[in-house]
Amino acid sequence: MTQHFIVIGNPIAHSKSPEIHTLFGTQAGLDICYQRQYCPDDAASFTAVIEAFFHGGGVGANVTVPFKQIAYECCAARGGLSEHAKVAGAVNTLLLNKALLAKGVPPVEALFGDNTDGQGLVNHMQRLGWPLNGARVAIIGAGGAARGVVLPLIEAGIETLSIANRTVSKAEILVDELSTASEKINQHTIQTYATADLSGDFDIIINATSIGLSGETLPLTDKLNCQYAYDMMYGRELPFLQHFSIRGAQTSDGYGMLIGQAALSFERWTGRAIDVAQATTALENVST
Amino acid sequence: MTQHFIVIGNPIAHSKSPEIHTLFGTQAGLDICYQRQYCPDDAASFTAVIEAFFHGGGVGANVTVPFKQIAYECCAARGGLSEHAKVAGAVNTLLLNKALLAKGVPPVEALFGDNTDGQGLVNHMQRLGWPLNGARVAIIGAGGAARGVVLPLIEAGIETLSIANRTVSKAEILVDELSTASEKINQHTIQTYATADLSGDFDIIINATSIGLSGETLPLTDKLNCQYAYDMMYGRELPFLQHFSIRGAQTSDGYGMLIGQAALSFERWTGRAIDVAQATTALENVST
Repeated sequence: MTQHFIVIGNPIAHSKSPEIHTLFGTQAGLDICYQRQYCPDDAASFTAVIEAFFHGGGVGANVTVPFKQIAYECCAARGGLSEHAKVAGAVNTLLLNKALLAKGVPPVEALFGDNTDGQGLVNHMQRLGWPLNGARVAIIGAGGAARGVVLPLIEAGIETLSIANRTVSKAEILVDELSTASEKINQHTIQTYATADLSGDFDIIINATSIGLSGETLPLTDKLNCQYAYDMMYGRELPFLQHFSIRGAQTSDGYGMLIGQAALSFERWTGRAIDVAQATTALENVST
Repeated sequence: MTQHFIVIGNPIAHSKSPEIHTLFGTQAGLDICYQRQYCPDDAASFTAVIEAFFHGGGVGANVTVPFKQIAYECCAARGGLSEHAKVAGAVNTLLLNKALLAKGVPPVEALFGDNTDGQGLVNHMQRLGWPLNGARVAIIGAGGAARGVVLPLIEAGIETLSIANRTVSKAEILVDELSTASEKINQHTIQTYATADLSGDFDIIINATSIGLSGETLPLTDKLNCQYAYDMMYGRELPFLQHFSIRGAQTSDGYGMLIGQAALSFERWTGRAIDVAQATTALENVST
């Protein structure tokens, strides 16, 4: 029997998820149908579209911009949230809470939310062989993308964490909120800076801003160094990566994070682990 | 495998369709799940909700106020419309055009629209034993409800048809549009009147207005008589029926039409005919 999945967003035509998950389905030998699902940008429409999908017998949904926070609210009021989703304050993966279904709770009341973005980043770095355990890490950006990776990074054993943002107060607020939301995070001292003041040596620096979209560049000082530089963006020239590659750092864009988070969602839905290295190679052949 | 259905409307909490179709499923021995589906009142939300439902593997959807015209537009641009839906200019039943699916057309492009409201009325009258063949029929009202029953009545062999409306011009416009939309209707001369001017003897008079909701009464003259009076409304006191029952007419409200249109939708989706008399009795036991 075909298992049905969607990725819901607005806009959505550009999403690569259908091709990625269709390849996963082939790799896992499962009959799946994964499609893009447009939705008007309001909470009532999102809830209605998600309800209709799960009413129809859908198995799982990915959630992308602008619905990750709305999905969070939806699940918080129904079937619950994973710890990563709770701390991230956002959901990118929807499924049905099987325990609740078994108790006869209707599908739409059993909606459960997870967030695999952060773990997808960590898994990609580990595949790259970057030394997360004991690492001195800096994240540039204090929005949703940054929020989603802090806990997974801490769980991966990093030593120290700094968060920098154009306006430092936003970074401070993020740290306060995260420390309240998670005891694990609360045990870490997280330094905060204005981006222009971030300096010194780090093992890993992560660009969690969408500045790559606008062609602007980050105000990075020359006194800022790292061994590894990661930009969550992909599919375009990334000045952030160039800045550090000419200074001898190893760099990576976020395409592997995209595959990583997708593989984790797929596993969440089907219980089947994906050989991400093999899938990435296969996808690169598809997309070139 | 569970077959999934929804009724989509706004508001929708009041809909009786889930109970009706669940009973049909039991009667037909099919594993079905039929649920109410709220949707924000705009075309983009409706299209997104319907797409998500069929993406999820949904089999069929009923459409009620305020989406019947939007559903019509949706299907006209995709998998097509039945003749009844085309002439009614509205869709109450959505399914997937199997011929298109077989050609690899994706579900959302194979969306097919039917309208079973009018035939549901005709079938109910025939169950009541009312003599449609050769009947002189009058319809009061010139909105969507009236529009949906003209072709089925003509196909049932009525002799003459008059359409009355508070403002007669609306009835005239309806007749013009219907005659253009259907050759069968075009061959009939349909008289039009202001409701207050409708008089003489009819076999059947149908109230296709929603005046029953507001508690107002229709401006019916004493020179208007009929053997059978039908009000499409149900579930409340209906002054229209009282007006004619005290004048010796046989009367019926529209509950049987609701069951009739549902049975036709069910048959459209599953290929299984429903024993409507048996179902109606069973439902009356459920609802009392």
